[in-house]
Amino acid sequence: MVINEMTQEECGAFLASASLGRLGCALDSEPYVVPIYFVYEPDYIYALSTFGQKIEWMRANPKVCLEVDQIANQSQWMSVIATGSYQELPEPQFSAERDHARRLLGKRYRWWQSALAERQLRLGGDSIIPLFFRIHVDSMTGLRAIAESAESGNAPQK
Amino acid sequence: MVINEMTQEECGAFLASASLGRLGCALDSEPYVVPIYFVYEPDYIYALSTFGQKIEWMRANPKVCLEVDQIANQSQWMSVIATGSYQELPEPQFSAERDHARRLLGKRYRWWQSALAERQLRLGGDSIIPLFFRIHVDSMTGLRAIAESAESGNAPQK
Repeated sequence: MVINEMTQEECGAFLASASLGRLGCALDSEPYVVPIYFVYEPDYIYALSTFGQKIEWMRANPKVCLEVDQIANQSQWMSVIATGSYQELPEPQFSAERDHARRLLGKRYRWWQSALAERQLRLGGDSIIPLFFRIHVDSMTGLRAIAESAESGNAPQK
Repeated sequence: MVINEMTQEECGAFLASASLGRLGCALDSEPYVVPIYFVYEPDYIYALSTFGQKIEWMRANPKVCLEVDQIANQSQWMSVIATGSYQELPEPQFSAERDHARRLLGKRYRWWQSALAERQLRLGGDSIIPLFFRIHVDSMTGLRAIAESAESGNAPQK
């Protein structure tokens, strides 16, 4: 197995092709990690959520980290880490950005509508307003592990 | 889709059945998330690593969070979040715990030996000492989403 660092272009292409990641935020030096669906386009990661601990924490401390990986097995994987700042997209100030996020999130957003409807039932309607947000990406780093056997074949190498 | 909270027993059973998670740590209010292989047994999560940013950060701030999920699709998933404290297991002070970790990590550790050997080649031998650590789990929470169709079948419900 060889582990290579990915270029900025490779990190960006990988984020653009992915839809599921793990979002880390922190409050009072305590980390919190949750899975999220997202859409990436340079230099932003768009997502939506209902109100909850992660939104509360990111409002208090906008520094976030998104980890996105593709793990075939223990010696064949890719992992990209994007760090940046949380920015909420409320109306009316961010109507244009919010519409853009809504369009990008496309099918996933339609799925979320049923999830949100469900939450409305569960929570009695208190916390169901969908919150659109984006992360301004400040840095991206990535590692790619290639198994020895794949290596001698046609797997991409630097 | 219905989203249910998981019980402590369900969270523990899920962690025990899993091997891959995403570990979050934080330094100066900045979160950092990486994928790790682990073994859970009450009330500890065992893992190993080479020296790097996550070890450096966890030494400086032992508060960590492990997120473990199983996502079949957007309406059928489980996600468990364990929070706790990082504890390194150096020799000779923690020989017994380190041996226990080594045994538990079993096959994964054997895999890691080749990964570590590879790193030795890449890094010139500087950072290749395998670091065993464990996380003392302070709390676990979990959510399970069940699709409507599965719901009417025999999927577990609270």
